[in-house]
Amino acid sequence: MTDLTPSDARHAPEPVRERGRGAPKGQQTRAAILDAALNLAAQMGIEGLSIGALAEVTGMSKSGVFAHFGSREELQISVIREYHARFEDEVFHPAIRQPRGLPRLRALFENWVAKVATEIDSGCIYISGAVEFDDRPGPVRDALAGMVVTWHGSLVRAIRMAIEMGHLRTDADPMQMQFEIHGLILALHHDARFLRSVGAIGRASVAFERVIQYYAQGAANPLPAPPVPPAAGATSPAASV
Amino acid sequence: MTDLTPSDARHAPEPVRERGRGAPKGQQTRAAILDAALNLAAQMGIEGLSIGALAEVTGMSKSGVFAHFGSREELQISVIREYHARFEDEVFHPAIRQPRGLPRLRALFENWVAKVATEIDSGCIYISGAVEFDDRPGPVRDALAGMVVTWHGSLVRAIRMAIEMGHLRTDADPMQMQFEIHGLILALHHDARFLRSVGAIGRASVAFERVIQYYAQGAANPLPAPPVPPAAGATSPAASV
Repeated sequence: MTDLTPSDARHAPEPVRERGRGAPKGQQTRAAILDAALNLAAQMGIEGLSIGALAEVTGMSKSGVFAHFGSREELQISVIREYHARFEDEVFHPAIRQPRGLPRLRALFENWVAKVATEIDSGCIYISGAVEFDDRPGPVRDALAGMVVTWHGSLVRAIRMAIEMGHLRTDADPMQMQFEIHGLILALHHDARFLRSVGAIGRASVAFERVIQYYAQGAANPLPAPPVPPAAGATSPAASV
Repeated sequence: MTDLTPSDARHAPEPVRERGRGAPKGQQTRAAILDAALNLAAQMGIEGLSIGALAEVTGMSKSGVFAHFGSREELQISVIREYHARFEDEVFHPAIRQPRGLPRLRALFENWVAKVATEIDSGCIYISGAVEFDDRPGPVRDALAGMVVTWHGSLVRAIRMAIEMGHLRTDADPMQMQFEIHGLILALHHDARFLRSVGAIGRASVAFERVIQYYAQGAANPLPAPPVPPAAGATSPAASV
């Protein structure tokens, strides 16, 4: 069994993420443009990204932006890769420092919820992008779908490990569990962002524990429910989102 | 306990849905324009709807379309109302002919799944619209959110009735159940439409029965699982979507 791998090689982010001191000036500029592009994509959608719009918000010339990205499509794909890299930094990497099995799976979910909670005002590029590109085949859709599938694969691997550790039943279906957990995140994003409804984070957390409880019943080595409430107050059912 | 009501009065569709023989010519034309507008919205999003675009696809003059809708915003809201009316015809009305309680709740879910399954190539205006309008306050967003909230309210009422009938536990939380069921539909739409993944309908159905099973445990008057497979082959786990 391999460990969790953050990305398939095919979908690996480009190695261009050094920022700040020490990074060559060109890379610093590119990182600054990507920052602006991520903000723009959150507001306008990935389809709202263009060399011209980005030049306007960064105060750069079109040719300056063009020098870094070459085409609108390349810009869009770079933004998706950057979002993916940040998603991994915030959701995936902290979670794989948790022990294998249920603690790691729970951390993946809690970090994901925390990420969506920070995005209530900006939106999740994965979720919004899926709707934007579900009927637009092409390299941008493929890049986005590749990142989403990679992330789903990471979850499925974490679930498999929890089965191997005996934290979940051997007959648990990892793809089915991943589907159910993803549904909770989508419902959270919908209710918190579109409906502005109170209590969505709490509902997602309650449902997640119920999913775990179901698939842990009769496991060889079940773990108790988490001994302390999750560190992020945001995942408490009492939270106001 | 009131029976299920298809719409809050506030959000009731306008009474303009007579089509075909017998309806005045103006209403027939309006219905034909709305048909075209729904198709256009499915492809381009609600924001893709304009008097000009609709004139182009219907072969009418802009002033002809304008005579029926008056403004782009009115057109968009009319399309949302029309979608809602059709959604009720396909999902809600057949379900309320089922016995109160779990049979009706199950029918609501199965009809909803069947509706999403027919929309894999066109997209669901509720789901796509939520992402389109989650950061665009105004009358169109309000109309859309009103319809979605009305529909969620119908589900919550069906769940409450199932509790009253003793089919579900008295401590089941209807809002929590609705959240979980909605999540399954969102995951189905995402996986089937964006990822084109096989088996999403089956996963949604399996998960729904698990949700029901959980909330039915220890109920006063639990029902057996459905005696025959649902009529729609589309909801079978073996289905290819």
